[in-house]
Amino acid sequence: MIIQLNQDISNTQKAALMDQINHMGYKVTEVKTQVGDYLIGIGKAAIDIRKIGLLNGIQDIHIVSDEYKLVSKKWKVKPTRIDLGDGIGIEDGEMAIITGPCSIESEEQIAKVIGHMKENQISLMRGGVFKPRSSPYAFRGLGMEGLKIWYQQAREAGIKIVTEVMQVSQIEEMHDYIDVFQVGARNTQNFNLLDELGKVDKAVMIKRGISGTIEELLQSAEYVFSGGNEKLILCERGIRTYEKASRNTLDLNAVPILKAKSHLPVVVDPSHGIGIREFVPQMALAGVMAGADGIIYESHENPDKAYSDGQQTLNFAQSALLADQIRKTFALRKTFDLL
Amino acid sequence: MIIQLNQDISNTQKAALMDQINHMGYKVTEVKTQVGDYLIGIGKAAIDIRKIGLLNGIQDIHIVSDEYKLVSKKWKVKPTRIDLGDGIGIEDGEMAIITGPCSIESEEQIAKVIGHMKENQISLMRGGVFKPRSSPYAFRGLGMEGLKIWYQQAREAGIKIVTEVMQVSQIEEMHDYIDVFQVGARNTQNFNLLDELGKVDKAVMIKRGISGTIEELLQSAEYVFSGGNEKLILCERGIRTYEKASRNTLDLNAVPILKAKSHLPVVVDPSHGIGIREFVPQMALAGVMAGADGIIYESHENPDKAYSDGQQTLNFAQSALLADQIRKTFALRKTFDLL
Amino acid sequence: MIIQLNQDISNTQKAALMDQINHMGYKVTEVKTQVGDYLIGIGKAAIDIRKIGLLNGIQDIHIVSDEYKLVSKKWKVKPTRIDLGDGIGIEDGEMAIITGPCSIESEEQIAKVIGHMKENQISLMRGGVFKPRSSPYAFRGLGMEGLKIWYQQAREAGIKIVTEVMQVSQIEEMHDYIDVFQVGARNTQNFNLLDELGKVDKAVMIKRGISGTIEELLQSAEYVFSGGNEKLILCERGIRTYEKASRNTLDLNAVPILKAKSHLPVVVDPSHGIGIREFVPQMALAGVMAGADGIIYESHENPDKAYSDGQQTLNFAQSALLADQIRKTFALRKTFDLL
Amino acid sequence: MIIQLNQDISNTQKAALMDQINHMGYKVTEVKTQVGDYLIGIGKAAIDIRKIGLLNGIQDIHIVSDEYKLVSKKWKVKPTRIDLGDGIGIEDGEMAIITGPCSIESEEQIAKVIGHMKENQISLMRGGVFKPRSSPYAFRGLGMEGLKIWYQQAREAGIKIVTEVMQVSQIEEMHDYIDVFQVGARNTQNFNLLDELGKVDKAVMIKRGISGTIEELLQSAEYVFSGGNEKLILCERGIRTYEKASRNTLDLNAVPILKAKSHLPVVVDPSHGIGIREFVPQMALAGVMAGADGIIYESHENPDKAYSDGQQTLNFAQSALLADQIRKTFALRKTFDLL
Repeated sequence: MIIQLNQDISNTQKAALMDQINHMGYKVTEVKTQVGDYLIGIGKAAIDIRKIGLLNGIQDIHIVSDEYKLVSKKWKVKPTRIDLGDGIGIEDGEMAIITGPCSIESEEQIAKVIGHMKENQISLMRGGVFKPRSSPYAFRGLGMEGLKIWYQQAREAGIKIVTEVMQVSQIEEMHDYIDVFQVGARNTQNFNLLDELGKVDKAVMIKRGISGTIEELLQSAEYVFSGGNEKLILCERGIRTYEKASRNTLDLNAVPILKAKSHLPVVVDPSHGIGIREFVPQMALAGVMAGADGIIYESHENPDKAYSDGQQTLNFAQSALLADQIRKTFALRKTFDLL
Repeated sequence: MIIQLNQDISNTQKAALMDQINHMGYKVTEVKTQVGDYLIGIGKAAIDIRKIGLLNGIQDIHIVSDEYKLVSKKWKVKPTRIDLGDGIGIEDGEMAIITGPCSIESEEQIAKVIGHMKENQISLMRGGVFKPRSSPYAFRGLGMEGLKIWYQQAREAGIKIVTEVMQVSQIEEMHDYIDVFQVGARNTQNFNLLDELGKVDKAVMIKRGISGTIEELLQSAEYVFSGGNEKLILCERGIRTYEKASRNTLDLNAVPILKAKSHLPVVVDPSHGIGIREFVPQMALAGVMAGADGIIYESHENPDKAYSDGQQTLNFAQSALLADQIRKTFALRKTFDLL
Repeated sequence: MIIQLNQDISNTQKAALMDQINHMGYKVTEVKTQVGDYLIGIGKAAIDIRKIGLLNGIQDIHIVSDEYKLVSKKWKVKPTRIDLGDGIGIEDGEMAIITGPCSIESEEQIAKVIGHMKENQISLMRGGVFKPRSSPYAFRGLGMEGLKIWYQQAREAGIKIVTEVMQVSQIEEMHDYIDVFQVGARNTQNFNLLDELGKVDKAVMIKRGISGTIEELLQSAEYVFSGGNEKLILCERGIRTYEKASRNTLDLNAVPILKAKSHLPVVVDPSHGIGIREFVPQMALAGVMAGADGIIYESHENPDKAYSDGQQTLNFAQSALLADQIRKTFALRKTFDLL
Repeated sequence: MIIQLNQDISNTQKAALMDQINHMGYKVTEVKTQVGDYLIGIGKAAIDIRKIGLLNGIQDIHIVSDEYKLVSKKWKVKPTRIDLGDGIGIEDGEMAIITGPCSIESEEQIAKVIGHMKENQISLMRGGVFKPRSSPYAFRGLGMEGLKIWYQQAREAGIKIVTEVMQVSQIEEMHDYIDVFQVGARNTQNFNLLDELGKVDKAVMIKRGISGTIEELLQSAEYVFSGGNEKLILCERGIRTYEKASRNTLDLNAVPILKAKSHLPVVVDPSHGIGIREFVPQMALAGVMAGADGIIYESHENPDKAYSDGQQTLNFAQSALLADQIRKTFALRKTFDLL
């Protein structure tokens, strides 16, 4: 149960309301975000919502039986737009293109990527400065130093930064230099990280876990939302299966299912989803047709010399072609009557 | 190693050649199909193919290191066209649309589906008369009686029949009433069935196993090809994973990978691939963009009354819309420079 | 719903009974096995079983809500003993040891295995004469010729034969030379094969599918049972997962779950379950502790020279040691109060 | 490549050595643990280790080609004993029993569990005070307050504490109140947490990831080891597969494989591994036979009233019986000649 409160509800009214819901056998949690004020009731008792609806201070009330509540489309039918400023955003009905290298490597590399992006009217740049690596001996990214160099160039070019945050202690230091915090596939259920990201006023893109379910991805988003941050983006990036001919199994089924269950925008990552450079474009376009609101893919001036993930990274010529194809495919999709 | 033989090779020459390859440490199998005559050499010894190439009776020779040989693109770069007669076929560069009910139910039902197909210029019809069911107490299809009724109507309408064969003993009785034998996901590794299908002159569409690998699908196709039948179609229909929000996980990664590895056409089944009616169109179109040569989906006049699989079956209005969208999406894809 | 009929029920009584159950909204199937006569009612209507229970000709009646019925423990609490003659059997409360090579290779090889078995009081021998192989170019077994040689030696030695049947047409020719028909992991859902095995009076051991569920294994057993054959053994042999450090993932969880759901005996195959010779013994003993009624493992005089599966096959010294350890572990388990 | 350094190596010698290895084309990382001083060389160049071996300051040198190095058995053949003080430890050749509730609930509850443990000579207690929960609205544990109460009772009773640490910031506050830090299945690849745990002088038990590979588990252990902490325990707790009849699929194959690859002790968690109370004992005993060095299972005075995981928790009578059976099974295993 989600109860949307009025802005002007008094503390006395709120306390009385919580008390009443408790008496109905529901556990109540108050959620205050940058946008609204909600009471979440968890329970199984049959309830007559008209009784609550008549109380003062309540804007609306919704029964949501899913484990996730605030990210559900059952109470908020209208899709959520993630506004990143300067007219840039991620939302249903538009097609966000996010590209850039796996790892941020140098000032020069950043300049080249940004040049490529500007030429192709791409305004969202991805790149890792903190890299989760399965081996402790592998390159772990340039860290804050790299981020600051990147930030300066991106700001000058009017480009937004999407980059992974790996732990709570990085949130504060990264905060002023990024536009979208990315939660990586190994951290989808790092609940402390999600809790803390609930407290910031920056957008958060949550990748589906290495073998996470669709339900778990939505619950992870619920963590951030219930922590206070409604600016959420979901990302399908492939799951782990028995099939080893591709790096992961891109689960495009997840796209229409997530879009039907949640009001949050959904982005597809074909680079990790298939892991094979020459097939990234097909999977990107398949993602567009499956209903994605954005595509995030890896590009590099010289993929074979990239510090990481070169085998799934496009060069600039391929990337330019793909960006154009994504736009044309999306334009066609918009003429269709799809859910 | 694949050795393509000349039509006019004499038996003596052939025997001498096989002897020679044996001496090189290779096990030789002769394969005679409706199209050609091949020797398949299995072995690991280093070999100087020029030595063999100089022999009489040989058209060409190819080193193919994959486990599958004759279905590989490494020897036959040109995609294979499956000709079903009357100008109907399945091939790279075209878009086959195959639709129809899960189960053939009645004369009336067939007539309605065919009417719908004619209106929408669809000429390949799917439907089951022998139904594999996990419970022995479930409806198992109308059998040969149903097939004969279907055949008569289909022939009159100029429509081709794609239907599942479940066991060796059915091949002969079905043979004259079908255009494409379908091997179901539970029979992908029914090697005896594959062996026997190698002996017929009808096209065979092999569905990927319930949790089959891409490699296994190609090896199953190799069975039929090495049995003598080159008219093969591969079908991605979703795999079994831990994710239960969809019936299967449609693995569209398999499409470009199969197309790169094999010269055989690849068809996508979004109905089984996601198993949820309202999302079948998106996944069909995603399949087109992933590079499919055909889409096979379930349709029925009244899906909610279908004997089986109603939850993933489109009604005729939805099907008409989808066929149009598939064609438009394919037309756009053809303008792209994709692998 | 399972209705056990009396032996002396008249056809008129039976017809009346079936009619009555039909009227209750249930679809009725009659099942006649070598042991009993049953009516299986499939439906969802609420039913007062006392009403039926009062009718003549009925021995007992049971509500079984699972998809599988006759293999369920809900109607037959007492475990089923599979009697193979000469005092040899597979059953709850005993520990069957089944060993032998992956493939039957020669008269000599058989003699050596049998010698080893006699020395170690093992009376059930496994071995393949029809081999399912993913490549059409691989060794496919010695066929009927091999089976006949094996049969002669086994009969003389008082040893029972467990071997795989791959297709319907083999059932009749194999019938007189085997004791247990094995259905391989690729044929667990070959429903035609299961149907036909329901008509024979030999025991059938069904291996769990490559990625079959526990539920599907039970439903496959239901096929054979409802075809008329109650002599069934279930076999856990590992499932396909993302983990590639072992050949399969031996799912020992399946053992207590199958034993709780069904009255049929359960055998564990550690050879395919892990696929690594030096770890087969540990997994065999783990299987015993998990509750298996038998262990089936591969042995060969010289595993490194075996035609197939050598990497997971024990030599005779290892096999002798393991048989002893299995017996000691089982003896300990019997002293425990386990389900 | 692992180079074990002598205690008395001078900084000059060490610098020269690192320089030399760099020149051979290897990237060198120095690792200092509480026990030893190592140089880890990562590279692929062929190398003559005798050349390095002759240098001063080197105790030993080992080629380890696996991705993980210091946790490998290839350089340290002797199994590692984890000493927890007071004669309590976890090691190859012994059988550690770890039990306790899923969540620490109250002072009373702790007292009851400890009473049960003392009666049954169990000296390692598990329990959660920080609980990772997929829903943000679920009970998240008593936190530090609960841990302090637990600690006091455990110390008095001579019982050691095993409990989950979820984030870096908890390490310091928990440090003085625990004996073993547990890394949960959702944090197996939380590399920052692993890095920090490398700096503490307490034992760390790492659970295999929700769908982690055996290789990834070893690499996660390598993180902690290379951070400086050699006191590591590995835990198999079931993996995510398509099978839903059990909570997870307990992968006992992992036990002998991990024991063969690493010198670290391996513990099995049958409670999460199967998730069904009545089958926990069988799976625990199967784990013992598979080669585990310890079993960790959940127990509670009244499982049906437990705050979490009650469905997989044993009551005290069941736990007492199981502890006895584990010991007897282990005693039998010790008489066997297993790897």
